[in-house]
Amino acid sequence: MARAHWGCCPWLVLLCACAWGHPKPADLGGQDVRNCSTNPPYLPVTVVNTTVSLTALRQQMQTQNLSAYIIPDTDAHMNEYIGQHDERRAWITGFTGSAGTAVVTMKKAAVWTDSRYWTQAERQMDCNWELHKEVGTTPIVTWLLTEIPAGGCVGFDPFLLSIDTWESYNLALQGSNRQLVSITTNLVDLVWGSERPPVPNQPIYALQEAFTGSTWQEKVSGVRSQMQKHQKAPTAVLLSALEETAWLFNLRASDIPYNPFFYSYTLLTDSSIRLFANKSRFSSEILSYLNSSCTGPMCVQIEDYSQVRDSIQAYALGDVRIWIGTSYTMYGIYEVIPKEKLVTDTYSPVMMTKAVKNSKEQALLKASHVRDAVAVIRYLVWLEKNVPKGTVDEFSGAELVDKFRGEEQFSSGPSFETISASGLGCPSHPTKELNRKLSSDEMYLLDSGGQYWDGTTDITRTIHWGTPSAFQKEAYTRVLIGNIDLSRLIFPAATSGRMVEAFARRALWDAGLNYGHGTGHGIGNFLCVHEWPVGFQSNNIAMAKGMFTSIEPGYYKDGEFGIRLEDVALVVEAKTKYPGSYLTFEVVSFVPYDRNLIDVSLLSPEHLQYLNRYYQTIREKVGPELQRRQLLEEFKWLQQHTEPLAARAPDTASWASMLVVSTLAILIWSV
Amino acid sequence: MARAHWGCCPWLVLLCACAWGHPKPADLGGQDVRNCSTNPPYLPVTVVNTTVSLTALRQQMQTQNLSAYIIPDTDAHMNEYIGQHDERRAWITGFTGSAGTAVVTMKKAAVWTDSRYWTQAERQMDCNWELHKEVGTTPIVTWLLTEIPAGGCVGFDPFLLSIDTWESYNLALQGSNRQLVSITTNLVDLVWGSERPPVPNQPIYALQEAFTGSTWQEKVSGVRSQMQKHQKAPTAVLLSALEETAWLFNLRASDIPYNPFFYSYTLLTDSSIRLFANKSRFSSEILSYLNSSCTGPMCVQIEDYSQVRDSIQAYALGDVRIWIGTSYTMYGIYEVIPKEKLVTDTYSPVMMTKAVKNSKEQALLKASHVRDAVAVIRYLVWLEKNVPKGTVDEFSGAELVDKFRGEEQFSSGPSFETISASGLGCPSHPTKELNRKLSSDEMYLLDSGGQYWDGTTDITRTIHWGTPSAFQKEAYTRVLIGNIDLSRLIFPAATSGRMVEAFARRALWDAGLNYGHGTGHGIGNFLCVHEWPVGFQSNNIAMAKGMFTSIEPGYYKDGEFGIRLEDVALVVEAKTKYPGSYLTFEVVSFVPYDRNLIDVSLLSPEHLQYLNRYYQTIREKVGPELQRRQLLEEFKWLQQHTEPLAARAPDTASWASMLVVSTLAILIWSV
Repeated sequence: MARAHWGCCPWLVLLCACAWGHPKPADLGGQDVRNCSTNPPYLPVTVVNTTVSLTALRQQMQTQNLSAYIIPDTDAHMNEYIGQHDERRAWITGFTGSAGTAVVTMKKAAVWTDSRYWTQAERQMDCNWELHKEVGTTPIVTWLLTEIPAGGCVGFDPFLLSIDTWESYNLALQGSNRQLVSITTNLVDLVWGSERPPVPNQPIYALQEAFTGSTWQEKVSGVRSQMQKHQKAPTAVLLSALEETAWLFNLRASDIPYNPFFYSYTLLTDSSIRLFANKSRFSSEILSYLNSSCTGPMCVQIEDYSQVRDSIQAYALGDVRIWIGTSYTMYGIYEVIPKEKLVTDTYSPVMMTKAVKNSKEQALLKASHVRDAVAVIRYLVWLEKNVPKGTVDEFSGAELVDKFRGEEQFSSGPSFETISASGLGCPSHPTKELNRKLSSDEMYLLDSGGQYWDGTTDITRTIHWGTPSAFQKEAYTRVLIGNIDLSRLIFPAATSGRMVEAFARRALWDAGLNYGHGTGHGIGNFLCVHEWPVGFQSNNIAMAKGMFTSIEPGYYKDGEFGIRLEDVALVVEAKTKYPGSYLTFEVVSFVPYDRNLIDVSLLSPEHLQYLNRYYQTIREKVGPELQRRQLLEEFKWLQQHTEPLAARAPDTASWASMLVVSTLAILIWSV
Repeated sequence: MARAHWGCCPWLVLLCACAWGHPKPADLGGQDVRNCSTNPPYLPVTVVNTTVSLTALRQQMQTQNLSAYIIPDTDAHMNEYIGQHDERRAWITGFTGSAGTAVVTMKKAAVWTDSRYWTQAERQMDCNWELHKEVGTTPIVTWLLTEIPAGGCVGFDPFLLSIDTWESYNLALQGSNRQLVSITTNLVDLVWGSERPPVPNQPIYALQEAFTGSTWQEKVSGVRSQMQKHQKAPTAVLLSALEETAWLFNLRASDIPYNPFFYSYTLLTDSSIRLFANKSRFSSEILSYLNSSCTGPMCVQIEDYSQVRDSIQAYALGDVRIWIGTSYTMYGIYEVIPKEKLVTDTYSPVMMTKAVKNSKEQALLKASHVRDAVAVIRYLVWLEKNVPKGTVDEFSGAELVDKFRGEEQFSSGPSFETISASGLGCPSHPTKELNRKLSSDEMYLLDSGGQYWDGTTDITRTIHWGTPSAFQKEAYTRVLIGNIDLSRLIFPAATSGRMVEAFARRALWDAGLNYGHGTGHGIGNFLCVHEWPVGFQSNNIAMAKGMFTSIEPGYYKDGEFGIRLEDVALVVEAKTKYPGSYLTFEVVSFVPYDRNLIDVSLLSPEHLQYLNRYYQTIREKVGPELQRRQLLEEFKWLQQHTEPLAARAPDTASWASMLVVSTLAILIWSV
């Protein structure tokens, strides 16, 4: 799944620079947006009336003596997917897009969001709200300075601003005689009241040992050993990201969409383990698994989730140093720790350790990809038969691939919202109401993945069941070359992804083509589908043996078609002719590319060799699994679609003519 | 010429990770270093006695109430090459290496330098000095905290610390109860006294109009126009780098080695132009050229160089905002400007404008490279005849290529110290005493360049006159492929060099080989040979049409041989099959590579095509120049060495066998 190209927003998914203009049924209308300049204003039916809740929010603001209140789009853990009870910005504004910040003053209310969401915002917000077509803190602060009086206070929930975002607001407001005020009670929640969806409360469960790379005790010892080796001798590590606690204790739940996590924090000290979560959600088995009845250094004390701030503040009174990863720690925790007691890194030691999978985790992740390939192949076979009938649409297709995945062993749902997009070049999430028919005349892009107890998957394939144009074939083949060139690259250990991601683009650049998203991201063992800090972006860490990353070049022709070819790959040691510490990738996604879209004449002998070797691996890995499951039609399809590709005559001819030309040149140029 | 791979030290030249262990005549001895642990200590004859000067320095420190004094290795303008009167660290320590910081306390004296210089330091310093084998401010401050008492003051010359370096010292000392004290009178200079070499005083001259891209008036107007468009509305730009003032006024001199600059600052305001330099060095013609008798906005007022700090401080009293490039501004200027009156960018607008050459500047730079190729080719022809006689050494070779360049039109000396290195893999600057004979049994690396009134050049060629080993040929060819792959790369406009430099390394990585320096740097029009901020390092700015950069992959086999192939290339628009804003490189260095070292079987048809087209260009550009100059032997050599290369049979065979294999595979694998 493609991620935003921008450095600082790992949770933002930018697929391509298209606005919310996906094809809609005629009754909704292409441009049915609000018009606040008429009297009375024109409001489409999709608009939410926010007058009452805004009035109530302003009353709360008055109680707190605030001139303005900031309502971010995140939750307290920087989750990529947030729970409904955390969708405060959506509830107060009516605008449900995943990115956008709201600010309310006593007189005005405004939303800042990026171009993907401008039309959607105009269709969902009433005229209480201004729409600002910018992002970042600077335009918000510039607006605030004109809207609120000198001496005014700007309130915010410290658990909804990351350290970086807070610093950015703070810096911009410095010397302006307006003050940022941290208010731990969320004012939107007060107004939302009983209508607010409840916080999830299902049981938290432990992964079976078969699905874990190490016991939680081994992981705790490993982190403590890193604390001891650290130059600044931290006495504790504080974990704020839900994936950190889930990974550390091998515990899972389903509090948020797509990620199997539960609301939690962990304070792992040199002599204790404190897990902040909803106590009532732990069964006696889990409490026993966690040794929670004792108080020694290997006993997990469960404390209430809501106590984390006070507990950290109390712990920080001692002679301690608390190690945090600043990327995932919110200001609400940060502000209660004295600066001299902080040991900061961009990523916590858990985030860094989790990035490198041990051999068991590698085997687990690979195994989940074999079963995932079965589900995707079942879907592709089904599509091949049903698309020509004209009965498949983007939404029913997405439902089906999710269903096939659900039938696989150890399945635990999709790892993100399936992108199932026909034509138009602007991959999007279809809905029951908004979708397009799949057709043999159009390209179809499927970007989907599954959560399995043994691993998380993410794969994109693009298909054409009819006669693709020469340009479609060329673009597809150049994307494929990019995928191959990066996948087979040999590079020195500790090279950063940013330094090599251009290999996935070169074949496109050569022809004047490109794509506007990142080239890949890390992935977890039944954890995040976008697992930071691995990947090819500038703020990703250097590549190391044992990491998994997606490799996903693409090309998008606006209004016509979109191509993306995404595989997950393991970083492995490369055997080089001369000795040295070199790495390369081993692709662990096992679904063949679309032969119908490959222009073999663009491939070099090395590309063909690579591709045929990859196809042979697919046969070896997935073939037996299909046979075992009696999926004989799928097995036959797999054999057909992985037949070795042969070099085509045109290439030979051009190469031979090259020889002739250079021989002639020698004769002519010789003096 | 290769530069350091490290981001922050553009002026440091790291050629490879070898210490100062170049072959020496037997009488000096390989390991003739000091031994301070014996009584009396053993001191080689190369050691300088520093007892008297250290005592005098400590007296000065006492007068200023200092516990420690920092003596950096730079000058007041961050020059890559510094004048003798600025070699304070070398004079006070005896250690003449180009990189290293000294710190003196009342009891101890110490030098911090990197591994290139450890042996040299042990050969040159007496036992007054400790050698610390580390770099950066952290180890220095760690040492200081143990050596000087609480409450102690650490003195420094604010014109010898960049803003960044000062901030780094300041941050490290914070809360330690030791204070940094800025002392504008340099204490080493007080001790050095009349022995200190004089500051250069030759006349400053104007470039003829034929050699300038724009008049100084046009340049001044351009910078003012950028000031007006700037969001923060600066009222002045302050230029601290010597190349900035030289470029702005089209003035040159020879105050420092290799760079045609003069000591100066410029304060360009919206209504005045103030040039700080030694007034007596301007002839009446230059004064008139600069309109220095008037006081209007297009009149250059010359003020004394020594007045710059006071003048900036006085100017900053007004309602002004001073725009600086923080990379080249020293703390001595920075500390006198109130923070709210500073407009900071990493690079000044002059640095940014200078980076993009206009069409006349491009033509000038290209022309200088044609003449430079003549000089290098004369040298290569001469070597081909004389090396087999055994009469050439690295030093006499370097002298000869400098001499040939000196005979070219518009020559103004070498652009850096010629690297002329035979065998051993560790390119170094030979001296009359320390050098090695050139031989048909060894590889020879020549990295050299010239200053010409129309341009600055920099080229590296590696040659073998005998029978190179298969590994030497392979390594050379892989370096060549890297050079070609980067040179012919097509990439989107505004791509940063860092994102694409791996293309110069891929062919080496493939075999487990690599090089430890950067891949290229900007170059000027009779300015710096290493012209920041253009290049392939992380702190270089994005590539734009009109920039010039070197492209210089290499490979170094320690103790055996070194290879580097460096060309200068212009960034030009690329014509792509589909429309878009794409760039590529046009190589403007015109000396053929060594055919004796090319393994054609490693080259793809595209590499051969590129290489043969490049050779054809060399013939067209340099051939007529050689004929015009009656250099007929060189002309013949050029024709021989630029004969088109033909693909070799092994490649064809392997390609054909590939075809056979894949066809067979189809037959076998088909089910």
